[in-house]
Amino acid sequence: MSSDLEKFFQKVEELKPTFKTRLGDAIKIQSVSDVDLKRQMATSLKSQINDLGGDLDLHEFDNPPGLPPLVIGQYPKEWDKSKKTIVVYGHYDVQPADDGDKWKHPPPFELTEGVREVDQKKCYFGRGSTDDKGPVVSWINMLEAYQKANIDLPVNLRFLFEGMEESGSTGLPEFIKSDDGKKLFENADAGVISDNYWLGTTTPCLTYGLRGIVYFSITVSGPAWELHSGLFGGTVYEPMTDLIALLSTLVDSQGKILIPDLSHDVEPLTQEEIDSYKGIDYTMQDLYTATGSKTAIYDDPTATLMARWRYPSLSIHGIEGAYSGPDTKTSIAPKVTGKFSIRTVPKMTVEDISTMVRDHLDREWKKLHSKNTYSFKVNDAGETWRTKPDHPNFEAASRATNTVWGKKPDLTREGGSIPVSLNIQEGLGTDSEGNPKSLVLLPVGTANDGAHGPDESIPIENYVNGAKVLGAYLYEVANEKGVVE
Amino acid sequence: MSSDLEKFFQKVEELKPTFKTRLGDAIKIQSVSDVDLKRQMATSLKSQINDLGGDLDLHEFDNPPGLPPLVIGQYPKEWDKSKKTIVVYGHYDVQPADDGDKWKHPPPFELTEGVREVDQKKCYFGRGSTDDKGPVVSWINMLEAYQKANIDLPVNLRFLFEGMEESGSTGLPEFIKSDDGKKLFENADAGVISDNYWLGTTTPCLTYGLRGIVYFSITVSGPAWELHSGLFGGTVYEPMTDLIALLSTLVDSQGKILIPDLSHDVEPLTQEEIDSYKGIDYTMQDLYTATGSKTAIYDDPTATLMARWRYPSLSIHGIEGAYSGPDTKTSIAPKVTGKFSIRTVPKMTVEDISTMVRDHLDREWKKLHSKNTYSFKVNDAGETWRTKPDHPNFEAASRATNTVWGKKPDLTREGGSIPVSLNIQEGLGTDSEGNPKSLVLLPVGTANDGAHGPDESIPIENYVNGAKVLGAYLYEVANEKGVVE
Repeated sequence: MSSDLEKFFQKVEELKPTFKTRLGDAIKIQSVSDVDLKRQMATSLKSQINDLGGDLDLHEFDNPPGLPPLVIGQYPKEWDKSKKTIVVYGHYDVQPADDGDKWKHPPPFELTEGVREVDQKKCYFGRGSTDDKGPVVSWINMLEAYQKANIDLPVNLRFLFEGMEESGSTGLPEFIKSDDGKKLFENADAGVISDNYWLGTTTPCLTYGLRGIVYFSITVSGPAWELHSGLFGGTVYEPMTDLIALLSTLVDSQGKILIPDLSHDVEPLTQEEIDSYKGIDYTMQDLYTATGSKTAIYDDPTATLMARWRYPSLSIHGIEGAYSGPDTKTSIAPKVTGKFSIRTVPKMTVEDISTMVRDHLDREWKKLHSKNTYSFKVNDAGETWRTKPDHPNFEAASRATNTVWGKKPDLTREGGSIPVSLNIQEGLGTDSEGNPKSLVLLPVGTANDGAHGPDESIPIENYVNGAKVLGAYLYEVANEKGVVE
Repeated sequence: MSSDLEKFFQKVEELKPTFKTRLGDAIKIQSVSDVDLKRQMATSLKSQINDLGGDLDLHEFDNPPGLPPLVIGQYPKEWDKSKKTIVVYGHYDVQPADDGDKWKHPPPFELTEGVREVDQKKCYFGRGSTDDKGPVVSWINMLEAYQKANIDLPVNLRFLFEGMEESGSTGLPEFIKSDDGKKLFENADAGVISDNYWLGTTTPCLTYGLRGIVYFSITVSGPAWELHSGLFGGTVYEPMTDLIALLSTLVDSQGKILIPDLSHDVEPLTQEEIDSYKGIDYTMQDLYTATGSKTAIYDDPTATLMARWRYPSLSIHGIEGAYSGPDTKTSIAPKVTGKFSIRTVPKMTVEDISTMVRDHLDREWKKLHSKNTYSFKVNDAGETWRTKPDHPNFEAASRATNTVWGKKPDLTREGGSIPVSLNIQEGLGTDSEGNPKSLVLLPVGTANDGAHGPDESIPIENYVNGAKVLGAYLYEVANEKGVVE
């Protein structure tokens, strides 16, 4: 290890109490939905980085109004043309924590320290500890350690922190396309996002792909109001019967999607890809622990990971409009909406999938010969994202992770979508050869951190090592020729 | 018409203002769920009838505790062995009216007078006006008119008014089997219940049959908690997928029940029965108006009435445990419960139907080869009820109705269940030849009264004529030899 990195790591260790305070201060600001509190959080991030030598500003949105600002700008103040330029994304808004009574380590908006039950890891608890305040302040921790170790940051950083991630990143796509956005990404070599999690709890990972999603709803309408099933059962077409019939044509019990041709665009499986699963630290027990159940479709880890990462899936989420309470209500609902979504993989596109599903449902609807009316809607959609894991940007992140954790990270994809990845990828644009610039997802926290739930936590070791990995990653990016193109 | 009846009808007309006050007083007492208010209502009924010469008491329940009393006893005080004895059932509890803001004729607990939109009838509005305070106080109106016209009541009456009908008649079945219950039904010749409605709004009816109901729920469980469909979709058996598959095997879009053998016990259709539908005042427009829609399975009234009265139907009511809100939630629900019910007809029995449904679902479940677990439950059930409409008791009610309305009542069945009918039928027992004693459902209100909904109402004409019909019915019962056996 270089003496610079050694000094940096040592400084991180020394600064641990400061880092704890920094995370605690961030957790205390309830940047959930109140724009003033969000602005307070944004201002704190801006000031801290500027105090360390950055040049960040709050970017206020004119339209739509009422949005919290972006925190954007560069570090250090002056752009050094001779260094690589890396774009860093994070978000400072957090999920609500109305479920305070379910927290075993309360209160949600205060950092507490303890051992979490599920894996006996020593953790910091608090809303945002892992999603995404912990990773965001890790960037500040890293800058502080570099500075206090008297080492120049070996790259230019461009920061982009938003306050609307938990609400669909309103405004972000438009910003990225705007002149201010283009300026932020100008001359960027690569991007990094720390907003996902290790696949498990013992092995770090780098993530290079995400499934997409298309969210559908189908609505069946009949009577103008709720009817009594005794008085009308058997005499009218019941919307719920028709909806159940349609939903039953989508997917079978084994998870096989029944919509014709839908899986045709899935990429063929190569031996190389099969081999890539072999070293990944994932067991069936990991799935059983995560689901609290042994109701797994496959009984080997590779098939399970493939189903999660490289094959589409279809889930039926629920029905709106029918009785959903605990009693024995005997009504015929007048209008019911079934909701389901398809997780997509390369090279499926939102457009193709939407058309296939619509055509399929139209065909199935005709078979019913019902006098009810039926409508179809795509509620939400995000394309798949995948980048090349054999890119120097990933290799830098991999070496950095290995240096800190003593373990090469697994190269993973993820089954869920992280829509901002697509936005940042778009902002990065293409290199001189026309290839998309590299974006690496470099998680700080673990699979058991419980983002969005009660007792959100981050292992203290992960939090502290987060600063180390980020710092080492920048070091590797800067010092290897051709790390970024 | 006999001069007695003429005098009685004239007295009813004179007493209209008193009857309005009586109904208004009853509506004012919010006998919804508060036991003290219910007792107040019960006491008022008891006192009014006793003031007119009755011998009624409050029957308090020891077990379970906290129940409102029954109002039971006879009229007149002394049982006259030479007269017929008729059991009268009604209920003095009412539905809640938390939807006060939806009432166009507020407040719910005050009698107001007005014209209702749907059929332009002059009505009394108020909670309980038609279900069932209006009919219940019609009995008192009738007694008062008989008394003030100086005519002896030609029969013995036995009253049974309960305060738990809207909550499943808790305690009633046990009371009927008890010594006090047996005493109330002792020497009874027939029974009458005014707690349903005309088929439409222009022709009175007498009801001689009700469908039964069996209410089922099926629960599918998998993961121990809610899962993210991105992280787990495709890797675990999803309870919602399995539940939809099961529900889709129950009934088709045209209302045909798909459970094998289920309809085998339905009685064959005779020419006599077909003929009995011919004169019934029911048009397709009645169905379209009642449902606000033309999504009818049949396009002729007879087929529609048959589907409602003499054939079983199956309705899927809803799903508990899956997301039912308006958003695009992407979760996999860990445990979902589907609810459906079957309306049964003679000679289907709850036991047979339950077994058939269970066997069917067991078979369908096995076909899924799912690792989830599945359970089945009969939540609620009531047998069918049917009596003979060509019985002298019905003939008396028919003549009485014809005298008052100038129209022979339609003989109808109903698609819903009125569980107390079975209880009262059981209390009545059998006659000397072993045949069940006759019970007639003699409705006062109309199809548009909106029981349970906002703006519950009763046409003023129906309310006033209610007293006349009940009085004339007793007159007919008493004066025709062999009216009751």
